[in-house]
Amino acid sequence: MPETSLPQIPGIRLASVAANIKNWQRDDLLLITLNEGAAVSATFTQNAFCAAPVTVAKEHIRNGNIRALLINAGNANAATGERGIEDARSCCSAVAEALHIAGEQVLPFSTGVIGEHLPLQKLLDAIPVAATQLSGDGWDSAARAIMTTDTRPKTASRLVEIAGEQVRIVGIAKGAGMIQPNMATMLAYVATDAAIPQPLLDELVREAVSASFNRISIDGDTSTNDACVLIASGASGPLIGDKRSAEYERLKAAIVEVHIELAQAIVKDGEGATKFVTVKVQGAASSEEALKVAFEVGESPLVKTALYASDPNWGRLVMAVGNAGVDNLDSSQVDIYLDDVQVVEAGGRAADYTEEAGQAVFSKPEFTITVNLGRGDCSEHIWTCDFSHEYVTINAEYRT
Amino acid sequence: MPETSLPQIPGIRLASVAANIKNWQRDDLLLITLNEGAAVSATFTQNAFCAAPVTVAKEHIRNGNIRALLINAGNANAATGERGIEDARSCCSAVAEALHIAGEQVLPFSTGVIGEHLPLQKLLDAIPVAATQLSGDGWDSAARAIMTTDTRPKTASRLVEIAGEQVRIVGIAKGAGMIQPNMATMLAYVATDAAIPQPLLDELVREAVSASFNRISIDGDTSTNDACVLIASGASGPLIGDKRSAEYERLKAAIVEVHIELAQAIVKDGEGATKFVTVKVQGAASSEEALKVAFEVGESPLVKTALYASDPNWGRLVMAVGNAGVDNLDSSQVDIYLDDVQVVEAGGRAADYTEEAGQAVFSKPEFTITVNLGRGDCSEHIWTCDFSHEYVTINAEYRT
Repeated sequence: MPETSLPQIPGIRLASVAANIKNWQRDDLLLITLNEGAAVSATFTQNAFCAAPVTVAKEHIRNGNIRALLINAGNANAATGERGIEDARSCCSAVAEALHIAGEQVLPFSTGVIGEHLPLQKLLDAIPVAATQLSGDGWDSAARAIMTTDTRPKTASRLVEIAGEQVRIVGIAKGAGMIQPNMATMLAYVATDAAIPQPLLDELVREAVSASFNRISIDGDTSTNDACVLIASGASGPLIGDKRSAEYERLKAAIVEVHIELAQAIVKDGEGATKFVTVKVQGAASSEEALKVAFEVGESPLVKTALYASDPNWGRLVMAVGNAGVDNLDSSQVDIYLDDVQVVEAGGRAADYTEEAGQAVFSKPEFTITVNLGRGDCSEHIWTCDFSHEYVTINAEYRT
Repeated sequence: MPETSLPQIPGIRLASVAANIKNWQRDDLLLITLNEGAAVSATFTQNAFCAAPVTVAKEHIRNGNIRALLINAGNANAATGERGIEDARSCCSAVAEALHIAGEQVLPFSTGVIGEHLPLQKLLDAIPVAATQLSGDGWDSAARAIMTTDTRPKTASRLVEIAGEQVRIVGIAKGAGMIQPNMATMLAYVATDAAIPQPLLDELVREAVSASFNRISIDGDTSTNDACVLIASGASGPLIGDKRSAEYERLKAAIVEVHIELAQAIVKDGEGATKFVTVKVQGAASSEEALKVAFEVGESPLVKTALYASDPNWGRLVMAVGNAGVDNLDSSQVDIYLDDVQVVEAGGRAADYTEEAGQAVFSKPEFTITVNLGRGDCSEHIWTCDFSHEYVTINAEYRT
């Protein structure tokens, strides 16, 4: 975690306050305001039970001209029916009133327990207070205000020179449990002071999420509330509008890096996680196939408990590869490596493999499992963590 | 578990011996012999890394005229390459020699650790001993000999009168971890003394497995070694050869019951399981959709840890329903019941629901979660268990 504080993004101000949404002593409500002309793009959960704020945010973002984001921790406002929608709208109206904008210019986000109504009055009381405390310096507090079972804030930043100008990129995220491809109780906010036209920003957020948050897994569950928001304030950086320019490539690379750093921080802080493992699949016939195998390995409870035990139980790796539903997989073509140690050769135990060598890799806090399917040229990777006693404890006791 | 011993099935003899496949003091090798004319059908794992004995058994069963089954616990002979195949064949040959039959008339099965070669000599030494100890009374010892992480043997039996004759049905199974639809490290052997023509038996085993073992889930993993075998000795029961007869219906019902009883016993003895939960999905547009939702709920680690905690965290239930990938699911049509307690009504918390009522259900060792999708007339059910500290312990320490 960075000890230094995150830089300001001209055009963007933040305030974190304690709305006492749960019985805790901490900030749990974050207000972010954007300059006029800022562009905003977002991706949202694909869970059919998407939360009320997701429904409202999707509606509001369609109109563009977003001027504020409101994020609360401690209550997801999900599975709360019509009243949930009304509560989310009431929060937007309160923000609008405090900032003299329209309710439709506010995007609401919530994370926390599902199925309980928002303690609306607490939010309505806290919103005007937050509106008086806005500051460009608020990113670090913001990263803490959105946490739920996270044990630490997740932040990333880059400063890059593009077309002779300094461009700033800052990101914050929260994650922990329920993380899975296609978004999860994962909230991420990335902002740059560069100006990026809306259509390009829309494309960029999808690409960045695909390369980062959609490649991580904590427990295979996907939440009702996930969202990843990318903001281009344009308040001080250059206008970068040509998709085929070197400038765009450099900006995109830096923004994707920030997303990946946040996504990896979420896995490393997975509920109860003690290991950070990259699962690479090579030699696949297609990218889809490679990802399918990578997720099957990375999400198998038997693999994840073996990771926790630092037990190079490679039988569970081949079991998981075999379960991925790859058509006509020839197991005798499959090789598996633990970092540089070959453990499976042609579908069986590699001749030179020793338990000691495998154990040495599995004992490390971070390592890579590489599966070569031997049937094509495509490769993909994901990041996962182990399944520990602590995971069960956290999730068995979450509401108490 | 039944205190009484299982009945004999005329035509079938068994012997369990200690081959010391692992460093344990127990029987771990089971030999079953069948009378001439017995019909045998089986279903096998769909894992692409199917174990060597599965490959050999599939080959042998195609020729029919099976006269013996050999099952060992402690070593799966999976991911063991060509040598694994040779080892499985050597075991079949040893059985053949001891019984004066052909190697192709023997079906081999193994369960245990993946990726280690069979301690072949130990099996070859034990097989002739087993062949001298065959008895019709061996079912109870057999159920114990095939256990791995199972904490208790799984048995079921029925005695039904069909066409004026007594028909006997006996079944044994082993399961515990790695249980998932489409078969898992699950071995089941069901036998009847009725005579059933091969084509009808082939159909019957598929129907029985579909109604039983393919509806259970411990951890969502599928093993390399699963097999379910149905034997009709025909040695004393009636010939039941007409699929449309009332006699066949009665026999089928009893055989399916034995399969379901064994499947449920496997879930109840799931690794670390403390709860037995039926997940019913009603109002689905198709059976596939209903099963997909049922498994999404029954396999979600977040749902399973909530079951363990006896925490009626119904937010996780709606999260799982929303994740099932049902096309155009209208969450406002979804109702959920915990036994008879309605917890979700029209996608939100039911008006009359109280935490106390939900808690009372979740505190029971067995209960039913019913999801009504409100979009059709199809319904399906599965059986699952919780995810406990003990699950992590067992799977983190399995090889040590």
